[in-house]
Amino acid sequence: MNILKSFPTDDGFYMPAEFSKHSGCILIWPHRRDSWQSGAYAARRAFTELIKIISLSENVTVCARYEDYDEARRMLPPYVRVVEMNSDDSWARDVAPTFVTDGKSIRGIDWGFNAWGGLEDGLYFPWDKDNKMARKLCDLLDKDCYDMRNFILEGGSVHTDGDGTLITTEECLLSKGRNPSMSKTEIEEKLCRTLGVKKVIWLRSGIYNDETNGHVDNICAFTSPGNVVLAWTDDKNDPQYERSAGCLETLENTTDAKGRTIKVHKLPLPSPVYITSEECEGLDNMDGEPTRTPGERLAASYVNFYISNGHVIVPQFDDENDEKALDILRPLFPDREVIGIRARDILIGGGNIHCITQQIPQDMTAFSK
Amino acid sequence: MNILKSFPTDDGFYMPAEFSKHSGCILIWPHRRDSWQSGAYAARRAFTELIKIISLSENVTVCARYEDYDEARRMLPPYVRVVEMNSDDSWARDVAPTFVTDGKSIRGIDWGFNAWGGLEDGLYFPWDKDNKMARKLCDLLDKDCYDMRNFILEGGSVHTDGDGTLITTEECLLSKGRNPSMSKTEIEEKLCRTLGVKKVIWLRSGIYNDETNGHVDNICAFTSPGNVVLAWTDDKNDPQYERSAGCLETLENTTDAKGRTIKVHKLPLPSPVYITSEECEGLDNMDGEPTRTPGERLAASYVNFYISNGHVIVPQFDDENDEKALDILRPLFPDREVIGIRARDILIGGGNIHCITQQIPQDMTAFSK
Repeated sequence: MNILKSFPTDDGFYMPAEFSKHSGCILIWPHRRDSWQSGAYAARRAFTELIKIISLSENVTVCARYEDYDEARRMLPPYVRVVEMNSDDSWARDVAPTFVTDGKSIRGIDWGFNAWGGLEDGLYFPWDKDNKMARKLCDLLDKDCYDMRNFILEGGSVHTDGDGTLITTEECLLSKGRNPSMSKTEIEEKLCRTLGVKKVIWLRSGIYNDETNGHVDNICAFTSPGNVVLAWTDDKNDPQYERSAGCLETLENTTDAKGRTIKVHKLPLPSPVYITSEECEGLDNMDGEPTRTPGERLAASYVNFYISNGHVIVPQFDDENDEKALDILRPLFPDREVIGIRARDILIGGGNIHCITQQIPQDMTAFSK
Repeated sequence: MNILKSFPTDDGFYMPAEFSKHSGCILIWPHRRDSWQSGAYAARRAFTELIKIISLSENVTVCARYEDYDEARRMLPPYVRVVEMNSDDSWARDVAPTFVTDGKSIRGIDWGFNAWGGLEDGLYFPWDKDNKMARKLCDLLDKDCYDMRNFILEGGSVHTDGDGTLITTEECLLSKGRNPSMSKTEIEEKLCRTLGVKKVIWLRSGIYNDETNGHVDNICAFTSPGNVVLAWTDDKNDPQYERSAGCLETLENTTDAKGRTIKVHKLPLPSPVYITSEECEGLDNMDGEPTRTPGERLAASYVNFYISNGHVIVPQFDDENDEKALDILRPLFPDREVIGIRARDILIGGGNIHCITQQIPQDMTAFSK
């Protein structure tokens, strides 16, 4: 693995859309007892269900800590690769490399990671194990790695259409805990040079009470160039209403890098999801303090799906809108099976299906496992 | 990775000779402070020198503990792959899988490992991290794995010619700390069914004071079918004399699986190598006791070489026989460059170049990294 000091665009590399062909997917076996209730056992079952579906069309690599390896190997089917790798938590989207391609080979980008806000408003300390994972994963996969550690970014805070356009949120990328010394223009330039996009669409904010400072991947996602789904509520008394309406306004009043207007498909939110006392009881304290309070609203959203080669895997919350969300997504992904899985046990950790996955784009140079 | 309960020979698999084509090589980054002097820094330099030479003709994967990963990555060149994997010590020959082939694909064998003798006369306790590595390495390489954990064997205790014949030592394989409930015949049958050999040649013993209970790879090795090198001394007062003479007698009075007599090429031993007080000072105690005593004779031997695709890499001891050993080996490996490296800092750990390497045979089914 070579560490590259250039920018991906200097070398003809760009970030493909998630709906482009993948060679594989990376996940991290959950373990953190102040993130995942009851020793992470419920989360492990949910991860396993997800992994089995992804494995139907992609090679899956799961990183497990030494102490969790045997359990991961026991629970996961034999066709899933389990590798030993230490981590602070289990959010592959945000700590695994963002992969870029030149149409033939792939490379990784190693962003700086500071647990969603560092000493300003990060979610745990320290985060050094997580911050080392992107580079280690490039090494494991034998892919060269762009050193972007001086720029704090999580994979979940950007979405690209693979055709020159990126969406992100101001709430996250302009937060004090990320890159406070950089201007919006400088951040935009960095995104263009690293991800190979020409146009950055800045949504104002993400999902209400989302502890990532409003990652875009929980509120809005491309389904194809020129088409996005947007998490939506019609309830004007919901604090989410104004947030979603703000995103809609931005999207309706812009064009993408190719000059297209953007068609917005509203994806209803589930009824607000609150964590129960029983669920909170199952979470260890962090530094002596609880990480969740009974009744706290969780950032549930159907937008946090993963697009595998064969499926679109969508979180479900035992809500009346579960099936509606799938029905809206189906015509947007005519070549894939849109499938839901119960995701409450992932949501409790603070994110959802998209947050715990990271795709490896197609690699024409090697058997990619 | 599928765990296979059959025997390799049931499936048409056998262990190829080390001088067959490799796709790669596995090593483990040294760390154990009661094995490797002065925090393993000298050993790390020696490992790095060796790895650079192997890398000239093979893909090298180095397993490093989480806490050593950054240092390994810093010291090793970028074209070497470093993966995170926990271990008790650093003897890839004995803890990595023994690979078998059917001529197209490869699979690993996961032997039981008990630190060279378990509670009888093993070298450290516990050894569970080492014992888990073979299976993890199969998983990492996406190769199926034969479960032979109920049989204690280290890779260093067997050599095959890839043509039906295996050499081993009674001192090791019949030791009380390995498989005391099995008869010699049962052990021989196990070797035949797992490694695909038809004939087992039992040498009596290995190198004097070799703490592995006389691993064959320190005293005798095939250089081609029908040819072996044997560690030799003409000094009848050396306790090694009788051991080497015993091996010679066996080898001269047997034929291999193909009915060939075996040509024995004597490889002189270096003058006895003793550990110094300074070197002992650099070793941490184990359970409050020193692991080495000043003046202790180390099991130095030129036979402990590694055969890579392009080289034969031979330990050197600043001894007058260093060059002689290389000169004897050169005509035996006409297609490879025979090269020496200073190996005292590896020897102090208790083994040598062959002990710290494990080849991955050629794999026709995949890009093998």
